[in-house]
Amino acid sequence: MSHYFDANATTPLCPEARAAWLEATDQHWHNPSSPSRASARVHVLLENARAELAALFGATAESVVFNSGATEGNRDVLAYWRRISPESRVIVSAIEHPSVLENARANCVGGQLVILPVEKSGCVSMKSLVELLEKRGGGLVSLMAANNETGVIQPWQEAIEVCRQYRATLHIDATQWVGKEALEGLASADFVTACGHKFGGPKGTGFLLVSSGLSGFCGQRGGAQENDHRAGTENYPSIASMVAALQASEAQRVGVQADNGDARDRFEALLSKAISDLKIWGAGEARLSNTSSLCLPVGENTRWVRRLDQRGFLVSTGSACATGKDGPSHVLAAMGVTAEEARRTIRISALPSTNWEAWNSLAAALVELLPGMDGGDGNPLVIKL
Amino acid sequence: MSHYFDANATTPLCPEARAAWLEATDQHWHNPSSPSRASARVHVLLENARAELAALFGATAESVVFNSGATEGNRDVLAYWRRISPESRVIVSAIEHPSVLENARANCVGGQLVILPVEKSGCVSMKSLVELLEKRGGGLVSLMAANNETGVIQPWQEAIEVCRQYRATLHIDATQWVGKEALEGLASADFVTACGHKFGGPKGTGFLLVSSGLSGFCGQRGGAQENDHRAGTENYPSIASMVAALQASEAQRVGVQADNGDARDRFEALLSKAISDLKIWGAGEARLSNTSSLCLPVGENTRWVRRLDQRGFLVSTGSACATGKDGPSHVLAAMGVTAEEARRTIRISALPSTNWEAWNSLAAALVELLPGMDGGDGNPLVIKL
Repeated sequence: MSHYFDANATTPLCPEARAAWLEATDQHWHNPSSPSRASARVHVLLENARAELAALFGATAESVVFNSGATEGNRDVLAYWRRISPESRVIVSAIEHPSVLENARANCVGGQLVILPVEKSGCVSMKSLVELLEKRGGGLVSLMAANNETGVIQPWQEAIEVCRQYRATLHIDATQWVGKEALEGLASADFVTACGHKFGGPKGTGFLLVSSGLSGFCGQRGGAQENDHRAGTENYPSIASMVAALQASEAQRVGVQADNGDARDRFEALLSKAISDLKIWGAGEARLSNTSSLCLPVGENTRWVRRLDQRGFLVSTGSACATGKDGPSHVLAAMGVTAEEARRTIRISALPSTNWEAWNSLAAALVELLPGMDGGDGNPLVIKL
Repeated sequence: MSHYFDANATTPLCPEARAAWLEATDQHWHNPSSPSRASARVHVLLENARAELAALFGATAESVVFNSGATEGNRDVLAYWRRISPESRVIVSAIEHPSVLENARANCVGGQLVILPVEKSGCVSMKSLVELLEKRGGGLVSLMAANNETGVIQPWQEAIEVCRQYRATLHIDATQWVGKEALEGLASADFVTACGHKFGGPKGTGFLLVSSGLSGFCGQRGGAQENDHRAGTENYPSIASMVAALQASEAQRVGVQADNGDARDRFEALLSKAISDLKIWGAGEARLSNTSSLCLPVGENTRWVRRLDQRGFLVSTGSACATGKDGPSHVLAAMGVTAEEARRTIRISALPSTNWEAWNSLAAALVELLPGMDGGDGNPLVIKL
């Protein structure tokens, strides 16, 4: 029996999404752009899926652009912005996903790119954003809704107001938010990125919400699909599956959020008592209820991950997209965490189905493993429980 | 009972691909970039799939970049080329898919883009290509392996030789080729585009072959996935499914090709006898064995499609990606077909499983419908059968 605590990296396909994928694959596999009646039916189903997804956000169906995932979405927003506004400034937070940061760097020259600092808490500095926009309005601001490593919720609602006030365009990367937190209000941003496999949908499918005020958005050329916003044969089976996943997720979200949050908080309280010098990044801030970023007093995180894995607990060192890259987490570094602390940090991220027993047994495993993790690095090691 | 003759638009998922998708989705859904053993197993499976796909082409595993499909692949090749060689010339044939043509236009300024003409036969003019390259070598040449509307096979083997001789980089869009014709030799091109759902694989998945000589290719930034060639969580279920589809397709290809070709040729011979003034675009050239582009003596193609659909035959007016666009097919126009003839042209494209009975009953339906299709446009209408 293994316990999965790497849900921010990916989730298994939920039953509703599996059923929807199979139904679409078996019965509605025709090309929605072909001229037959069977294709027309798929086209209608595709547009229904678009309307249903839009309804969850209180957005218009026209604003939904289905794509292959958040990495594509983030790239396309940055590229589109540079194309329509070649001279303007781009402000991105220091804790954005690499697909935002690297595309922002690639699309900006000289001083066009401003990296917004975060507080020690892991929350982006709204003060800095306001100061920047007060000096010069306009441009693009790209801010994630919640951080993938720490779970810290970012002040995107405030950012919507501030960007409106200073006539800046706002992109919210809501990859970790959607499926975990309330969707209300997100669609007020100019762009919203999301990704199916983070909330029980299939891999290779995501979507962008694109505000109607932004004309000419085009991620892929070469066909009129997605209202001219993204060419290529529509992947209706995966789209139907993703929408089913989000509907299923929304139907149970409030309860899951409370249960997950309670369990995570008990887990952290238990561990804090048991392990002195335990640090929990972002603990003082509102966080995603499934996420806990733990800095253990001893032991490299890669070793922690291996040992926990052997006991049936799947946790992570941080972002899967950053695995294999040199150096410690850019997210933790931006929060002022030392490289040495970052190397002792593991990311716990639960599924909606994760219950207290799983959290509790993970806490027990951490406590049990701790004595064997002292690699002789001189850190004090005190177990109180 | 309906007969599907729109396989060049999309194909249903084949049983092997369906089984592979389900197995991967149920058992190997973990993020291949996460640090757990379960993830490491998915990573190994992913690399096995890459090696198996590469083996079908006689290519190296390193040359395979999995992506979301041919539209993405074509865009990324054109964008990459412009980035590494901003001043160079781009030569594309007049009958390329819109995802090549539109990206070529978007990435070229002034006289950088040269459109290569095609012969009346539907075959690209190698004479023109040689003349162009004789005057000035280098640059990028983009040529499809076989045309999606006419099925006419393009001289890509010759193009490989010519481009090598004149030090031009060659991109082959093999979207319609892969799964229908022998893969041998394709990997000698610098780039090859392919797409899973054209050969019984899932939608939303494709691949590029990228020659090892082309360093720094990157379709999406923000992660080290796909050997730094494309960031984003790998869609292993769809990749496994696509590779299973191509393996299944290759295992039966030679027989299917012969049977399909025989049936298509008999179908065309039968119709040519039965319907005077029937034209078959590209009839004199080597064509994909599943494709027939028919210019009927009377009737708008949209009307033909509807009438045939009512009788259970799903055919197309042309490329699904061009549906809804104004004007007649750019492929037929490049071949010197008049707009009026193009409007009387339907595309027939069979599945590997399509048998002679289906072709024969389609021929009978065409002949039976013909008298009712005379819209009073003054065309002579003679039915001999």
